Amino acid sequence: MTDEISALEPTAGADRSRRGGGRAGKRAGSGAAFEQPPFRQLRIPFEPVKFVSDDQLETIHDASLRVLEDIGVEVLHDEARTIMAGAGAQVTPGTQRVRFDRALIMEYMGYCPSQVTLHARNPAHSITLGGDNLVFAQMASAPNCSDADRGRRAGNQADFRDLVKLGQMHNILHLTGGYPVEPIDLHPSIRHLECLRDFALMTDKAFHVYSLGKERNLDGIEIARIARGVSHEQMMNEASLITIINTNSPLRLDIPMMEGIIQMARHGQMSIITPFTLAGAMAPVTIAGALVQQNAEALAGIAFSQMVRKGAPVGYGGFTSNVDMKSGAPAFGTPEYMKAQLVGGQLARRYRLPYRTSNVCAANTLDAQAAYESVFSLWGCIHGGGNFIKHAAGWLEGGLVCSYEKTILDIDLLQMVAEFLTPLDLSEDALGIDAIRAVGPGGHFFGTPHTQERYKTAFYSPVLSDWRNFESWAEAGSPTAYQKANTVWKQRLASYERPTIDPAVEEELNAFVDRRIAEGGAPTDF
Amino acid sequence: MTDEISALEPTAGADRSRRGGGRAGKRAGSGAAFEQPPFRQLRIPFEPVKFVSDDQLETIHDASLRVLEDIGVEVLHDEARTIMAGAGAQVTPGTQRVRFDRALIMEYMGYCPSQVTLHARNPAHSITLGGDNLVFAQMASAPNCSDADRGRRAGNQADFRDLVKLGQMHNILHLTGGYPVEPIDLHPSIRHLECLRDFALMTDKAFHVYSLGKERNLDGIEIARIARGVSHEQMMNEASLITIINTNSPLRLDIPMMEGIIQMARHGQMSIITPFTLAGAMAPVTIAGALVQQNAEALAGIAFSQMVRKGAPVGYGGFTSNVDMKSGAPAFGTPEYMKAQLVGGQLARRYRLPYRTSNVCAANTLDAQAAYESVFSLWGCIHGGGNFIKHAAGWLEGGLVCSYEKTILDIDLLQMVAEFLTPLDLSEDALGIDAIRAVGPGGHFFGTPHTQERYKTAFYSPVLSDWRNFESWAEAGSPTAYQKANTVWKQRLASYERPTIDPAVEEELNAFVDRRIAEGGAPTDF
Repeated sequence: MTDEISALEPTAGADRSRRGGGRAGKRAGSGAAFEQPPFRQLRIPFEPVKFVSDDQLETIHDASLRVLEDIGVEVLHDEARTIMAGAGAQVTPGTQRVRFDRALIMEYMGYCPSQVTLHARNPAHSITLGGDNLVFAQMASAPNCSDADRGRRAGNQADFRDLVKLGQMHNILHLTGGYPVEPIDLHPSIRHLECLRDFALMTDKAFHVYSLGKERNLDGIEIARIARGVSHEQMMNEASLITIINTNSPLRLDIPMMEGIIQMARHGQMSIITPFTLAGAMAPVTIAGALVQQNAEALAGIAFSQMVRKGAPVGYGGFTSNVDMKSGAPAFGTPEYMKAQLVGGQLARRYRLPYRTSNVCAANTLDAQAAYESVFSLWGCIHGGGNFIKHAAGWLEGGLVCSYEKTILDIDLLQMVAEFLTPLDLSEDALGIDAIRAVGPGGHFFGTPHTQERYKTAFYSPVLSDWRNFESWAEAGSPTAYQKANTVWKQRLASYERPTIDPAVEEELNAFVDRRIAEGGAPTDF
Repeated sequence: MTDEISALEPTAGADRSRRGGGRAGKRAGSGAAFEQPPFRQLRIPFEPVKFVSDDQLETIHDASLRVLEDIGVEVLHDEARTIMAGAGAQVTPGTQRVRFDRALIMEYMGYCPSQVTLHARNPAHSITLGGDNLVFAQMASAPNCSDADRGRRAGNQADFRDLVKLGQMHNILHLTGGYPVEPIDLHPSIRHLECLRDFALMTDKAFHVYSLGKERNLDGIEIARIARGVSHEQMMNEASLITIINTNSPLRLDIPMMEGIIQMARHGQMSIITPFTLAGAMAPVTIAGALVQQNAEALAGIAFSQMVRKGAPVGYGGFTSNVDMKSGAPAFGTPEYMKAQLVGGQLARRYRLPYRTSNVCAANTLDAQAAYESVFSLWGCIHGGGNFIKHAAGWLEGGLVCSYEKTILDIDLLQMVAEFLTPLDLSEDALGIDAIRAVGPGGHFFGTPHTQERYKTAFYSPVLSDWRNFESWAEAGSPTAYQKANTVWKQRLASYERPTIDPAVEEELNAFVDRRIAEGGAPTDF
């Protein structure tokens, strides 16, 4: 246990100069409703797993290049095809099919930066992707939300805001990763403006913008720029926003996704290209085949980002999993998903790119299944060398629901993972030989000075785990982790405080958003 | 997915010549009540994690040797002290304190075999410990058992037998690991005789004998020998039994444990030396300090086994975890436990020994906590390079309960881990380029021949995971994994069939056990 992680910090909204006295200790003064480890850039202290050998990795790499050379991809965006042709790709005349020589792909892959820093409006919350860095992003894009009190319901602005608050309050969540739930009570033409304003005002972390048309990308970039109070030039050199580009698997790159890559690359913002290659549905039923297709699609999108602008920040996303062959529904946190996570990471590192993977499950409620599928996913994230863990907190039902209770469970899981990744203190004092001598054979360590000096902060204190003995637990009504999570999110949400912002910046932000709303936002045909 | 794991086998009790048609397919004829992957020796296909550097590992190793040189251990067993003194250890006259030079320890550590094969009475169920081999043993030593229908109750012979049956039926459990629950309705003087007879007759896998006095070790060895139908000489060269030697931490080796090492080593049977070093209670509150003490105690016991008989089969056990500093209760599946698992594995491999670690949790029920603590434990087991995973199925409440439902949950988790560890098929056919070409951009793979030929066995089919959509799941009464596990164990247990045994062997076994019971078994003072 290092001092860094031992130090506790009040909630992000409270005065950052106060620090708590220990995990098991008392609360850290007024303003701190709960204790949690401080915000910090995490690192993975060991080598990722080589699930396939270097030779086998080259086999997958080579197969992907054969797909791009022989079969190619369908690119629905006219300007994108023009850019690709200009770079040397073969566009079959009169079609949308584009094929790429392997040399062309590898030339452009070579222009990608290997690390990207995302600048938050609070510089203390800026984070780096790539290398051994690890960041966790809140769940994104659920159409529904749920909690144990109110049940399951369609996404709406009130829940959107409450979930964004939970994301801001918890230091283990490094950024918001898209709308935790889709606020369908906001008209799609102005939804992005309201949501991005909320990200900019209710959080001080980096955030995500959806690639659903040029206006939305540009509005997001401008809102992030105003919130940071920097120039357009500075934004060009300092990525502040991230977008996820899902290919339309198999082998199709659609108009909004290509437009998103173009706008983000031209403005120095980050795209993460993530094929959604479900083995047996949108990709071959073999995990090897799904990975070949994932890699082909990712390489096409990533190389394209560099054709738009060499050096544009970009990441490699893996989302290969299997489907339930009985129903066709996606499965997550499965053995097949874990293998794909590990090999996906090997591929991303082969190209020296930041690697995105996810904490996902297919459970319908917060039972043992939700927990084992999520921890298996996190296992694959960490040993796959994941840099950017999307959907890190809140995901249930294969992504159809963002759950308040699952958000708390995941926060606890992520905090445990972060503690697991903290190197051991191996100082002479920590080795404890003097304590072992003082206690001697048959003694005990409870009351020793060595223990007394350390016990408050020696161990991670979990949010949910109930470690009472059976009798005490049964007397308390035999509560499950689900019930405890339900209590915790309500207590924590009630203590949310909006992060400070320069009133002039807030005014400028509101003026921009209000003007864009008055203009009608992004055009829709309904 | 290899053919090996794809092949399904009926339950162990049924005719082994019949094999099922696939995971998602129909049942494999009469006698096979459920489908499961075949019994096989598992291997971990990637390098274990180096959580500490080689230099840091030497720091821990060196600190342990300082403990053994400067502080020493208390050895309560007179003959053991005599053996140690004979080998060159310093026994302080008139005391039980024994100190060991580092050269002496390392000399005897060098005599240990690096791999041990445990011979089951069914040779197809023999297993190997050490190297990259991985075996799972059923939970052991719970004083209580529980299921959702009958609640929590003290251990008894009926539950002992039912749990042993579940252990026998499931191919993923390679051996029984002690009494899954303690049958307290059997008098301690003859309990081991009844239980070991049950192991020998109700299972055909390797098993464990408790080291609770010389008679019990010798009875266990004789029962295993009769069941295998081999000579005493063959038994000496073919380990068939395992015993766990828990040191009496801190730094105390008690009489029954030392006697167990002596008897097992003299008869060619395996001891796994496992200090129970709870950080903050029986060991320093720092994980580094607890590991130093674990290693010192393990080295003392392991080296002693080689002083008894060079080359005796022996293993390195790690059980370091933290305690809940509020209550003093042991915690499991924590970040601290995982770190100790990884470094424990590094230490075991430093001495080229089989490594024992465990699948444990502190939850009181089969909720999310039980699942996340267990999967975190399994994570540490696998990436720590565990060879012998004790308590692999059934463990709840920090070991105070063996749960029928947790047994099923764990079997599912272990099967998922086994599938995760199965190498990817990277044949040209599995890479699927032809399938990708045939489907083309924007198509789908559901109906393609590549999918049709494989879908039944492409993916692991989980026992508990409910992958129905929310509406179907809600209509079915919103069942949790706990409820499903309750249904599954009853169905499966009902289909148990006793493995075949030569009637002459059975007669000899019964004659031996009946005679020993008539003699009074192992003497007790009550």
